[in-house]
Amino acid sequence: MKIAVDAMGGDLAPQAIIEGAIQAATELPSDAKIILIGNENIIKDVFKGYGDVPSCIDIVHAEDVIKMGEHPTKALSQKPNSSIAIGFKLLKEKEVDIFCGAGNTGAMHVGALFSIKAIEGVLRPAIAGFVPQLGGGHAIMMDIGANADCKPEVLAQFGELGSLFAQYTFQLSKPRVALMNIGEEEQKGSLTAQATYPLLEQNKKINFIGNIEGKDLFTNKADVIVTDGFTGNILFKMGESLYEIAKKRGIKDDFIDQTNYEAIGGSPIVGVNGNVMIAHGVSTPLAIQNMIGWAYKQVKSKAFLHIAQALN
Amino acid sequence: MKIAVDAMGGDLAPQAIIEGAIQAATELPSDAKIILIGNENIIKDVFKGYGDVPSCIDIVHAEDVIKMGEHPTKALSQKPNSSIAIGFKLLKEKEVDIFCGAGNTGAMHVGALFSIKAIEGVLRPAIAGFVPQLGGGHAIMMDIGANADCKPEVLAQFGELGSLFAQYTFQLSKPRVALMNIGEEEQKGSLTAQATYPLLEQNKKINFIGNIEGKDLFTNKADVIVTDGFTGNILFKMGESLYEIAKKRGIKDDFIDQTNYEAIGGSPIVGVNGNVMIAHGVSTPLAIQNMIGWAYKQVKSKAFLHIAQALN
Repeated sequence: MKIAVDAMGGDLAPQAIIEGAIQAATELPSDAKIILIGNENIIKDVFKGYGDVPSCIDIVHAEDVIKMGEHPTKALSQKPNSSIAIGFKLLKEKEVDIFCGAGNTGAMHVGALFSIKAIEGVLRPAIAGFVPQLGGGHAIMMDIGANADCKPEVLAQFGELGSLFAQYTFQLSKPRVALMNIGEEEQKGSLTAQATYPLLEQNKKINFIGNIEGKDLFTNKADVIVTDGFTGNILFKMGESLYEIAKKRGIKDDFIDQTNYEAIGGSPIVGVNGNVMIAHGVSTPLAIQNMIGWAYKQVKSKAFLHIAQALN
Repeated sequence: MKIAVDAMGGDLAPQAIIEGAIQAATELPSDAKIILIGNENIIKDVFKGYGDVPSCIDIVHAEDVIKMGEHPTKALSQKPNSSIAIGFKLLKEKEVDIFCGAGNTGAMHVGALFSIKAIEGVLRPAIAGFVPQLGGGHAIMMDIGANADCKPEVLAQFGELGSLFAQYTFQLSKPRVALMNIGEEEQKGSLTAQATYPLLEQNKKINFIGNIEGKDLFTNKADVIVTDGFTGNILFKMGESLYEIAKKRGIKDDFIDQTNYEAIGGSPIVGVNGNVMIAHGVSTPLAIQNMIGWAYKQVKSKAFLHIAQALN
C-alpha cells in the first residue's frame, strides 16, 4: 500500500508533515509505504535533522506549491507540477492508494473532482468529519465544508453515501443515519431540512432514525449525521474548539481529548473514485501521524469501491 | 415593575415554575412583582407546599393551557383563555412589563407577533440566545430558532437589532457584530452568507468585524453573532449540551457551568414592541428563577424602546 502525503501543504509544512510521516512510519504495518510529495531538496534537508530516514518513506519530487490563499481551479491548472496536482495524478494512475494533504482545502477537493472524479451517480461528494461519541467510537458528519449549499436530494444522498462509508469503515451492519435539525418532529426545520426528511425516510437502503438536534452531536444517537457543509462546518469546528478550551482551562478528560483534531488528523472525501484525506491547515506532526494511520485503515476498508458497487 | 410568568408552560409546570418564582421573589428588588398566569386553584394548591407565599407574587387566572405539541396559530385563536394568550393580552395592554414562558415556543413567538407585534421596520423578530464567553460575559446569537430560513436582508438586520440590543443590555458603546460563517474571508460561505457580508459591512450604524467560525463561538471575538435560526439553534443547543456532558463526566469548571441553560434561563425575542422571554421546555426551578432575574434587567434596559427609536 502506498500512502501519498503532500509534504508542502499546511501552515507548518514541510517540517511538521515530514516529522509526522517519520513518526507514522514507525507504527505502520510492513505492507505500507509513505510517499512524500514535494521539493526533494527541501525534504532531504529536513530529513537531516532526524537521523536515519525509515526505508518505508519515499520522495516524489514536485517543483511547485499551491499556496493556501490561491483560487483552487486556477491554481491546479496553472501549476501541474505542484505537490497537490502531482498527488492527484499519482492517485488517478493508481500509483498510490490514497492521497492526504493539509494544504489548500479547495484545491484538494477540486483536485479530487477533476482527477479521480465523482463516482457515477454521486451528485456531490462531501467531506466527512469524524465526530467522537460518548461511550467510544465516532460518528461521521457529512458534509463538513465542501458544499455550503445543498439541495434536499444531495442531503438525502449524503445519508446513503455516509451509511455505506460507516458500514465499511466502522464495520457496522446497519449504521444509524440521522438528519441534523432543530427539533425531533418530521415537520421541523428549514425548508431544505423539511424536504430532506421524507427522502431519507423513503430510502429503504438506509436505517434512518429521524432528526437529531445540536445537543445530540456527541451522545451516540447516530452513526451518520446528515447536514449541509455550512452548518456541518460550523458545528464541527465548534466541536474541535472544545479541546483547546479544555486545555487552556486545565480540564483533563478522555472524551474531550478526542475532540482534538489531532486525534484523527484528517477527513475523507466521500463519493469520489478513490481515497483522499484532507487535514487541517494548522496540522502538527501528531495530526499528520494520526492521519496516516487512518489513511491505512481507509485504504483497507475499500469503502469507495463498495460505494461505487452499491450505486451502480 | 410587573413580571408575568406562564405558570402552566413547560414540561415540569406548574410545580417547577411556581417554585422558581418563589425563589426569584426572595431576590428581586422591591419594585418588582411576579404575576403567575395559570389555573388559580392549581397554583394555590402548589403554594401550600411552600409556607408563606411572598407578597410580591400575584396570580392571574387562566382557565386553559396550550400544550407543547399544539399548532401555535390554531391554539392561540382557539384558546383565548390559555395562559399564553392571557399573558400576551396583559403585555399588549401594558398591564405587565414582560411576559416569560417555558411553554410551546411557537405559541410564544406567534403570540408576540400577533399581540405586541414586530417593531415597524423589523423584517423578522428573532430569538436571541445568550452565549457565555471565555473571560466572562455573554454574546448574543441571533437567531436561535424563530426563523429557520433567512434572506440576506433579514440576517443583515439581525446585526443591527442585535447591536442595539447588546448596547443597552450589556452597556457596550460599540458592540462587535460578526457573521457566523465557514471561513474568515469575505467570499466564504453559503450563497446567503456571501450576500449578507456586504450588507453588514455597508451598515455604518454597526461595528461589523467580519466573519467568525464555529471555533470562535465562546472565544469572546464578538458581542453579537449573526446567523439563521437553523444553524443558530443547532449550535446553541450543542453549546448547552456541554454542561450536561461535563456533569456526567465529573468535570467541574466555571466556564462550562455557564453553558448550563439554567444559568440564564431564557432567551428574549428581539424586534417586537415589548419584552418577551422564552424558556426551555424542560425548565427547572433554578432556570425559572434566573430567567425572572434576567427579565428584571431586560425591562430596566428598555432595549426594545431604544430599538424602536433607532429604527423609526
